[in-house]
Amino acid sequence: MLTRIDHIGIACFDLEKTVEFYTSTYGFSVFHTEINEEQGVREAMLKINDTGDGGASYLQLLEPVREDSAVAKWLAKNGEGVHHIAFGTADVDGDAEAVRDKGVRVLYDEPRRGSMGSRITFLHPKDCHGVLTELVTSAAVESPEH
Amino acid sequence: MLTRIDHIGIACFDLEKTVEFYTSTYGFSVFHTEINEEQGVREAMLKINDTGDGGASYLQLLEPVREDSAVAKWLAKNGEGVHHIAFGTADVDGDAEAVRDKGVRVLYDEPRRGSMGSRITFLHPKDCHGVLTELVTSAAVESPEH
Repeated sequence: MLTRIDHIGIACFDLEKTVEFYTSTYGFSVFHTEINEEQGVREAMLKINDTGDGGASYLQLLEPVREDSAVAKWLAKNGEGVHHIAFGTADVDGDAEAVRDKGVRVLYDEPRRGSMGSRITFLHPKDCHGVLTELVTSAAVESPEH
Repeated sequence: MLTRIDHIGIACFDLEKTVEFYTSTYGFSVFHTEINEEQGVREAMLKINDTGDGGASYLQLLEPVREDSAVAKWLAKNGEGVHHIAFGTADVDGDAEAVRDKGVRVLYDEPRRGSMGSRITFLHPKDCHGVLTELVTSAAVESPEH
């Protein structure tokens, strides 16, 4: 069951400048940064609020680290903006299977590694009214066994 | 101060079909529907989670009701997808002024009426790294005086 908006993924050309915008304009602060080699991005997570399910909602600022990454291709086509939205769940495996059974294309056979040790998968935007949609199970809070 | 992701605004061609997708695929439910004549949209708010500031995060599904509305023009150019993101604050007037003082273009001179009696304003996407950004103060919880 999807119990929160986990994050909004925002693609940008320059991570430092974009972080500077969000921190200086709104007073948000950087909660975490990392490079995800598999996704071909470096990212900053800005925590915006806690959520009723014991998790939190973040902005995820993404800059591609290689030109063949999905985010780099998306930026070349669309320019900066909202790249995807992510819903949090305690069971990304079960929820991915459930939406697959409903005819939505799930992009990974098995969940992969996301931000902060989470496990994630993506749903095809053409099956989701144009919205690239991620399902995510956080590492620390919800699935210590992973 | 912006204390939550209030909602993600998603533009669609057919509100009923899009609501059906979100409710049947994920189990979300419709919290509220309305027509906002000024914005030229009809909308469905799907509550996703409560937030730590006493508010909540929603998906806001938007279908234009007239061809000259901003959302209609956006859909004609972009197709369905994430139209804007919204941060919740107890003081949309003060926060709009604060971001204006930092050089971000605020689209309204004064906040206007948003979903569920809220007061909203928008920030120019070109000043926000490509993201059309809304600031919103909810009616019932945060500003009963309005």
